[in-house]
Amino acid sequence: MADDVKRRASAHAGPTTTGAHASGGARDPFLLACRRVPTEYTPIWLMRQVGRYLPEYRAIRERLSLLDLCKTPEAAAEVTVLPVDRFKVDAAIIFADILLVAEPLGVGLEFAKGEGPVIQAPLRTPSDVERLPEVDPDEAVPFVFEAIRLARRALGGRVPLIGFAGAPFTLASYLIEGGPSQAFLRTKRVMHTEPRTWQALMEKLSRLAIRYLNGQIAAGAQAVQLFDSWVGCLSPADYRHNVLPYMRGVIAAIEGGVPVIHFGTNTAGLLELMREAGGDVIGLDWRVDLGQAWRRLGDGVAVQGNLDPAVLLADLEAIRRAARAVLASAGGRPGHIFNLGHGVLPGTPWQHVAGLVEMVREESRR
Amino acid sequence: MADDVKRRASAHAGPTTTGAHASGGARDPFLLACRRVPTEYTPIWLMRQVGRYLPEYRAIRERLSLLDLCKTPEAAAEVTVLPVDRFKVDAAIIFADILLVAEPLGVGLEFAKGEGPVIQAPLRTPSDVERLPEVDPDEAVPFVFEAIRLARRALGGRVPLIGFAGAPFTLASYLIEGGPSQAFLRTKRVMHTEPRTWQALMEKLSRLAIRYLNGQIAAGAQAVQLFDSWVGCLSPADYRHNVLPYMRGVIAAIEGGVPVIHFGTNTAGLLELMREAGGDVIGLDWRVDLGQAWRRLGDGVAVQGNLDPAVLLADLEAIRRAARAVLASAGGRPGHIFNLGHGVLPGTPWQHVAGLVEMVREESRR
Repeated sequence: MADDVKRRASAHAGPTTTGAHASGGARDPFLLACRRVPTEYTPIWLMRQVGRYLPEYRAIRERLSLLDLCKTPEAAAEVTVLPVDRFKVDAAIIFADILLVAEPLGVGLEFAKGEGPVIQAPLRTPSDVERLPEVDPDEAVPFVFEAIRLARRALGGRVPLIGFAGAPFTLASYLIEGGPSQAFLRTKRVMHTEPRTWQALMEKLSRLAIRYLNGQIAAGAQAVQLFDSWVGCLSPADYRHNVLPYMRGVIAAIEGGVPVIHFGTNTAGLLELMREAGGDVIGLDWRVDLGQAWRRLGDGVAVQGNLDPAVLLADLEAIRRAARAVLASAGGRPGHIFNLGHGVLPGTPWQHVAGLVEMVREESRR
Repeated sequence: MADDVKRRASAHAGPTTTGAHASGGARDPFLLACRRVPTEYTPIWLMRQVGRYLPEYRAIRERLSLLDLCKTPEAAAEVTVLPVDRFKVDAAIIFADILLVAEPLGVGLEFAKGEGPVIQAPLRTPSDVERLPEVDPDEAVPFVFEAIRLARRALGGRVPLIGFAGAPFTLASYLIEGGPSQAFLRTKRVMHTEPRTWQALMEKLSRLAIRYLNGQIAAGAQAVQLFDSWVGCLSPADYRHNVLPYMRGVIAAIEGGVPVIHFGTNTAGLLELMREAGGDVIGLDWRVDLGQAWRRLGDGVAVQGNLDPAVLLADLEAIRRAARAVLASAGGRPGHIFNLGHGVLPGTPWQHVAGLVEMVREESRR
């Protein structure tokens, strides 16, 4: 694994520092940091940097539903670029949703107002799992790949574009629970009492994640993030037996030599196992000290994170204090990508996001 | 701190092993394990071991609401003893609710059906905090102390009785949010933007927790658990500045030389800081490997946990596998108290709880 990372890194790394927003290629701070190459300043992007907190996004959502926006490549590409124009973040992430693949899986998908996603026909029996079709992303979600091509063009090389997918566990939990869950009891029940059904489901979702991410890379994504957002509900023993082998398979199958960001929340007890599963960058939420987490993960990996998104609801003074603490914890080591510990919260003032990006650039310049 | 623990331990520890359910005093496996003294087998009790999953409890709840049950000492003592009779657990915990103190604080308290607790007048302004009265638990919740006296009598020395209180942060979050919360955004906002209000609130709730727990000890509680159930929503930096000093103060003020269990969920990133705050026993949820957590905490402390409560919804085979994994992770070191990582879930078959208690006793006997 480490060798593989190095091989890929050496194929891409140019000089050891770079000017900002210049090349849109392997010399970008974001891509360099993914390879743990020193950069002039700590690159920053934010999960859910496109969302309701942005006035331009709200305006577009007045005419398009979330699903329609995802399915309209011109509009998806347009909103993807918004935070690059407005905040000068160091990476864009394609506007999409990890549940877009639920529709072609035939389980139905709806975004209820203010309620989050609803899976209309959640998986309830082993035969529900058997019946899930093998999905060809080229046929099922061509609009995502088209949006990536358009976004690359709109970015014009200013910053790299990140693609993403839901990790198999997190997708499985949505499909089984029927939507967001607090305790994931149905998912754990399948895992604990129907191991063959669990295996079949995870294998299917792993194949889908691989094809979907490689399709995004072929379309132009320059890095990919696997969102295993809900995996932190598991014990380390359950993660090791029921998630790690699949994640390892997915990450090993990513093509094109692009960096892989492996993200989850509530994972302070799973970090070593996530590292074992793979990824060039481990995404950390705010519930762990970044420096301590990095020491546990070891030198051979970059880290992304980890400001509490709730801090952006406070004031600029609190934001600066908390951003400084994250940078201090990273200690200026190459391989830190600044981000929140999870997505930007809906009520966040956009001015606070602007302030954060400026502060991180200013405070980290070396 | 470590010296204090040892002093208290040496004042209490008798011979290094003991028969089960014999003395109800300092020779009980549970109390010995709190002091890291070797025991014949790993003692076990379960958070929320009295709850809707127990037929006898459901029958009592048909005639008494949760609040009425808490306020009727004879009934509270009766349900406290149920799991000792039925499962032979190694400790009883007084039947009560961490929010009982919300009523005398004047914010109102209601348990909505299936919705959990609702605070009717949540704290919204600094003056709401200023107006909170200093509560004298002897006057405000005398029924808890009476229930403890009756439960001690009903237990007749079979197993020790644990008292408990909500930790200041967890209580503060309920009072500010108005009930259970997912993201604790209002609480964090006060913490980040109104430090003086936060300090005043935490000081008030710390004084209350100290008086309440010392009152329980005076009434007969032989150990106490501080439930900082929701503290795992915080970053380590926020914990260090906004919670740790208060927790340290509360734990240092516990009288009577009884062991203190310091519990929280989602705390895999906070363990060293919780240890710094204090406690003879650190309670772990299931999201961390118990052995790894114990190594991080160091030798000078006992640990309690940490089976995922969701495993009890599976089957006896899965329960045995998971219980063995927890025991293996503890490695037979003295000072492990078996428990779940959080409370017994409502739909749990009581036979699974019975099975777990038997398995742990059998598998851990040395």
